[in-house]
Amino acid sequence: MRIAVNTGGGDAPGLNAVIRAVVLSALSRGWETFGIRRGYRGLLSGEGVIPLGRDEVRGITHLGGTILGTTNRGDPFRWVAEDIATGTGGEVDRADDVIAAFQARGFDGLVAIGGEGSLHIAHRLWRKGLPVVGVPKTIDNDVCGTEQTFGFDSAVSTATEAIDKLHSTAESHDRVMVIELMGRNAGWIALHSGISATADVILIPEIPFDIDKVCDKIRLRESRGRRFSMVVVAEGATPKGGTPVLIERRKAGGADRLGGIGNQVADAIAERTGKETRCLVLGHLQRGGTPTTFDRLLALRFGSAAVRAVADGEFGCMVGLAAQSIVRVPLDEIEGRTKRVPLDNDTLATARDLEISLGD
Amino acid sequence: MRIAVNTGGGDAPGLNAVIRAVVLSALSRGWETFGIRRGYRGLLSGEGVIPLGRDEVRGITHLGGTILGTTNRGDPFRWVAEDIATGTGGEVDRADDVIAAFQARGFDGLVAIGGEGSLHIAHRLWRKGLPVVGVPKTIDNDVCGTEQTFGFDSAVSTATEAIDKLHSTAESHDRVMVIELMGRNAGWIALHSGISATADVILIPEIPFDIDKVCDKIRLRESRGRRFSMVVVAEGATPKGGTPVLIERRKAGGADRLGGIGNQVADAIAERTGKETRCLVLGHLQRGGTPTTFDRLLALRFGSAAVRAVADGEFGCMVGLAAQSIVRVPLDEIEGRTKRVPLDNDTLATARDLEISLGD
Amino acid sequence: MRIAVNTGGGDAPGLNAVIRAVVLSALSRGWETFGIRRGYRGLLSGEGVIPLGRDEVRGITHLGGTILGTTNRGDPFRWVAEDIATGTGGEVDRADDVIAAFQARGFDGLVAIGGEGSLHIAHRLWRKGLPVVGVPKTIDNDVCGTEQTFGFDSAVSTATEAIDKLHSTAESHDRVMVIELMGRNAGWIALHSGISATADVILIPEIPFDIDKVCDKIRLRESRGRRFSMVVVAEGATPKGGTPVLIERRKAGGADRLGGIGNQVADAIAERTGKETRCLVLGHLQRGGTPTTFDRLLALRFGSAAVRAVADGEFGCMVGLAAQSIVRVPLDEIEGRTKRVPLDNDTLATARDLEISLGD
Amino acid sequence: MRIAVNTGGGDAPGLNAVIRAVVLSALSRGWETFGIRRGYRGLLSGEGVIPLGRDEVRGITHLGGTILGTTNRGDPFRWVAEDIATGTGGEVDRADDVIAAFQARGFDGLVAIGGEGSLHIAHRLWRKGLPVVGVPKTIDNDVCGTEQTFGFDSAVSTATEAIDKLHSTAESHDRVMVIELMGRNAGWIALHSGISATADVILIPEIPFDIDKVCDKIRLRESRGRRFSMVVVAEGATPKGGTPVLIERRKAGGADRLGGIGNQVADAIAERTGKETRCLVLGHLQRGGTPTTFDRLLALRFGSAAVRAVADGEFGCMVGLAAQSIVRVPLDEIEGRTKRVPLDNDTLATARDLEISLGD
Repeated sequence: MRIAVNTGGGDAPGLNAVIRAVVLSALSRGWETFGIRRGYRGLLSGEGVIPLGRDEVRGITHLGGTILGTTNRGDPFRWVAEDIATGTGGEVDRADDVIAAFQARGFDGLVAIGGEGSLHIAHRLWRKGLPVVGVPKTIDNDVCGTEQTFGFDSAVSTATEAIDKLHSTAESHDRVMVIELMGRNAGWIALHSGISATADVILIPEIPFDIDKVCDKIRLRESRGRRFSMVVVAEGATPKGGTPVLIERRKAGGADRLGGIGNQVADAIAERTGKETRCLVLGHLQRGGTPTTFDRLLALRFGSAAVRAVADGEFGCMVGLAAQSIVRVPLDEIEGRTKRVPLDNDTLATARDLEISLGD
Repeated sequence: MRIAVNTGGGDAPGLNAVIRAVVLSALSRGWETFGIRRGYRGLLSGEGVIPLGRDEVRGITHLGGTILGTTNRGDPFRWVAEDIATGTGGEVDRADDVIAAFQARGFDGLVAIGGEGSLHIAHRLWRKGLPVVGVPKTIDNDVCGTEQTFGFDSAVSTATEAIDKLHSTAESHDRVMVIELMGRNAGWIALHSGISATADVILIPEIPFDIDKVCDKIRLRESRGRRFSMVVVAEGATPKGGTPVLIERRKAGGADRLGGIGNQVADAIAERTGKETRCLVLGHLQRGGTPTTFDRLLALRFGSAAVRAVADGEFGCMVGLAAQSIVRVPLDEIEGRTKRVPLDNDTLATARDLEISLGD
Repeated sequence: MRIAVNTGGGDAPGLNAVIRAVVLSALSRGWETFGIRRGYRGLLSGEGVIPLGRDEVRGITHLGGTILGTTNRGDPFRWVAEDIATGTGGEVDRADDVIAAFQARGFDGLVAIGGEGSLHIAHRLWRKGLPVVGVPKTIDNDVCGTEQTFGFDSAVSTATEAIDKLHSTAESHDRVMVIELMGRNAGWIALHSGISATADVILIPEIPFDIDKVCDKIRLRESRGRRFSMVVVAEGATPKGGTPVLIERRKAGGADRLGGIGNQVADAIAERTGKETRCLVLGHLQRGGTPTTFDRLLALRFGSAAVRAVADGEFGCMVGLAAQSIVRVPLDEIEGRTKRVPLDNDTLATARDLEISLGD
Repeated sequence: MRIAVNTGGGDAPGLNAVIRAVVLSALSRGWETFGIRRGYRGLLSGEGVIPLGRDEVRGITHLGGTILGTTNRGDPFRWVAEDIATGTGGEVDRADDVIAAFQARGFDGLVAIGGEGSLHIAHRLWRKGLPVVGVPKTIDNDVCGTEQTFGFDSAVSTATEAIDKLHSTAESHDRVMVIELMGRNAGWIALHSGISATADVILIPEIPFDIDKVCDKIRLRESRGRRFSMVVVAEGATPKGGTPVLIERRKAGGADRLGGIGNQVADAIAERTGKETRCLVLGHLQRGGTPTTFDRLLALRFGSAAVRAVADGEFGCMVGLAAQSIVRVPLDEIEGRTKRVPLDNDTLATARDLEISLGD
């Protein structure tokens, strides 16, 4: 048996652990593994196909990034011509070519590591006949079909540590500190790290916020002698309809002047409360670095389980975590769905019990 | 409403987070909370009862240890006389006195944070009428009724980091390094940290080991040019019946000379393979320190959920984690049971796929 | 003896360790210590004077922030009227009042922890008769008279860890990553963390940079198959006279549009090389959090040494580190001086040996 | 120019950083570098000589261990015959052969990274004509001629973190915790980590201890309501002449039963104070793992400075740190000397000011 493994989308702590587990699990069955660098483009051109053995995956479990180099961003169904030097413009569908290249290599299965977009592509390729097993990857934790994705625990840890650090500075300077975290569609990172690091306000996409409620919380703390506040904002947080968030000065500058939601919230707080307010956008710091122990293990389990699925001839599925065990979830089932924080989630209840304002 | 909170058994990262969540969750309902220092003894004498408010629990989420000081180790059903200065010897049953003291204080509920032993006591007190809600605490992760206990993720992280550190030294010195981890009845810590830190051998109580299989693995690595090996041993690991583990020299010294299982395994490996072998017993390092982000959040959720159970008048239960949500589990159900690593666990399958020897 | 301790300027990891060492060192001599909250304002009004004993400084060595709360920012020589509610506008000189308040309290010495600005104020107060011993504090490491300040090692560690994290993401995405670090007048943080985290370019205030040299380095790496680059920029870095850094689009927006030097450098690199380029401003993350072991120890040594200076009746000096020992440096000597990276520094030579571009 | 680099003695965090700096600094001068695996034996047999280029040293700065594999332990002046398969027993002097092998390879300089023993060998080889530059390496920090060695800061950090972790457990269990740290001849690690982690007692080789003084300190704390204590013991600590440390029970067992000094001290404390006392021997955890930022930078500076010394034709010296700068120290000067903690060291004064007992 010969299997291939590729990675799509952004960086996530644990990618190398998945790859290592795939290679060793295949080896222990006497199979060969090939990594596909630069995604489907590397497969098509053939230049990206590299054999992966014991030596190639030694000592990489805890390393950030991916030994496959750049992660894949091309969509074979909507191939941008310049990528393949056809000289013609526009998008073309190269899916059949990708499958042909895969078969020409004699591959028996593809382990596709990726987030929502990459799994969607994998799903469509599978419908066209490619034997694929998906491994969910997103630091945002918003892929359906798995209770958790690898990379999420690491991102939450990084965010928690950052909020912790800003905490002491905010307190020493009597300041409001706004920290913008990743999470365009779902507020998992903001919610988990905000509670863990004892934020005072947490704003997530699932709960549209009222800036006045945010300011009320800050003033309440002030009245109790707590002259600083920590406000955590997911990048996808949005104000309630009709609630004016933005201050006039920024509005005047046009969309280009607004900055992200973190900066907008910081400006609005400063304007309304008169408190010195600063914003930090944590950005890519959440993506990189050494995976936590939890993520290392989850990534290794995912990689190993993906190979077991291949061994069972069960394709068109994704491995996932359910009640502490690895399950196989049909890609059909997760198509087009996003895992958002449910409003009856006990973690939200915990936040409220801890008197953290959710801006509502 | 007035509630009490106590902690029993050994230290675990996250204790303070539970306490903080209990206090704030109670406060947000307008309740009072009292901490019981020194366990049931402190309650009986009255000296251990201290009011806990916002100020007492400020900034403690990430601190190791417990603000309640010494954790409880006394069993009211088998009270050692000297503890209460009766002047008489032997054990007495003071359970009714404990309940009377509880009622005399006007408490409406007790949040009992503890491991198997402490939850057993709480269970018996509940059967006698004490309104109790349990919070499972053990770094070993062997309490039934919850997928995970707080403190476990921190212990696994500490162990993983330790194995990582020993790894580079083992490699630089061509050595076999044996590391003994906690886990008397269950091998969760050894299994999770051993895989995450890429150990070569993992020995757990659930799988009796054959020392010759362990040495075979070390020799196999040697034959591949890997002149060092990392062996992780849970303190409760035991050799297969009839398999001689101990070397003669130690046997001669009597039981007192044997040391823990880690030292025994190290000696046996050295004797059988001729390799320079060292053993490190990680011990209490696994118990202490700052909780990981995962444990902080789980502990806060547990504390908050325990107060919600009290608010619902649902006693005689324990809060637990199931499929990422907090559930309430009757204490009746967990009585006398230990959560061991099931042999069909996919994490074990992962270990085998990664060519880690489990000694069988 | 009664001594007072205050802190001025921004937050720095280690402040609490200094305070603890001052209190315990005084206690061991049978002295009393008083903390001054809110700086000289708190001393003048009397509201900020709080006794500090063993209990107040227990367990704070490794905590970020300061138990004295907000750090001092008022200058008694240029007192802003509203601070003291005189009802009159403008600045007044309240230095004599501060000294009178100090004497009225019966204080025998002041340990003033602060950066350049605070030490300057302490110096002037000493010249007017206040018995002061300074403790240098700045994460920037730019105070003269000491080889290192506490907080610097922690800031460098935080910055190094951040660059490490961005590294794997930059590599996975074929990106140029610009990270802006603190250091308005001196490039110590950028230089030390940039080398430790293997940056490709480091720009510091001491060496005006040529943006074309920066881009040359990025292109050289590209030609060697390294399609990503890490560029570390101190906030005080400046382009060589006449070298155009800023792209036209931004220039058009006016100064307000330029952002900090990090964003300017990122834009310029993107424009010149066509590479996808991102900038992260690390900001206050460098100020907060737990001090490293090095900073804990240095802070404790500084605090203890300051009390020994008071015991010797040696005032008007600052404690400092010289060749691993604590020395006393007259405040006269450091007045108006800034410790910048000397151009013949061997660390700069190391950077060049490691083929790190310094932009010159 | 062709240079060689080898490493001797135990593992130390930062070894790879030195090697990387040597290779890149050589490359930037157009030189070639060769690593010598397995020390002088690898050089003699020729099998250990491997070319090191940009690719071999990529991404290794922060990795523990050494890419050269096993560190060297053979002494060419006292060569054990079996090492070289002569078939004859006993020791022989192969120093001339080593130098001949070095010259036959066309090497122009050797960068020898090692502790006291390895530098001593390098020194003798230099006297016989080998062009050598030493780089001091010991986590114990006891090499003369340099204010600090790389690896020391990492070891202190690891030890500090361990004491921190044990602290919360000791406190929760009312226990005395003894932690034995490395430092056979000098107490640097114990002193620095003990102060940073707020130990109550620190015992170092430089100050013979009186076990009764240790117990007095524990009792004094008890009398103040602090029912736990942390005792840090360097492995080379010794009791004052005539002071009985060991309890009778152990003495009876003979030397083999005594365990290290940490266990002896723990037993003695338990016997004398009646307190529950535990001992943890931190051991190899202090040697391994990722170097701290400080050690990364120091190691890189050392490696780069060693190449500059070679470039200047200055051999027979060692690079060292003095007043924050790199200096060259003649190997003659450090021969036979050990850097112990001087008794007038201000860090010792700090310990006393913090009411830490030094056992005297």
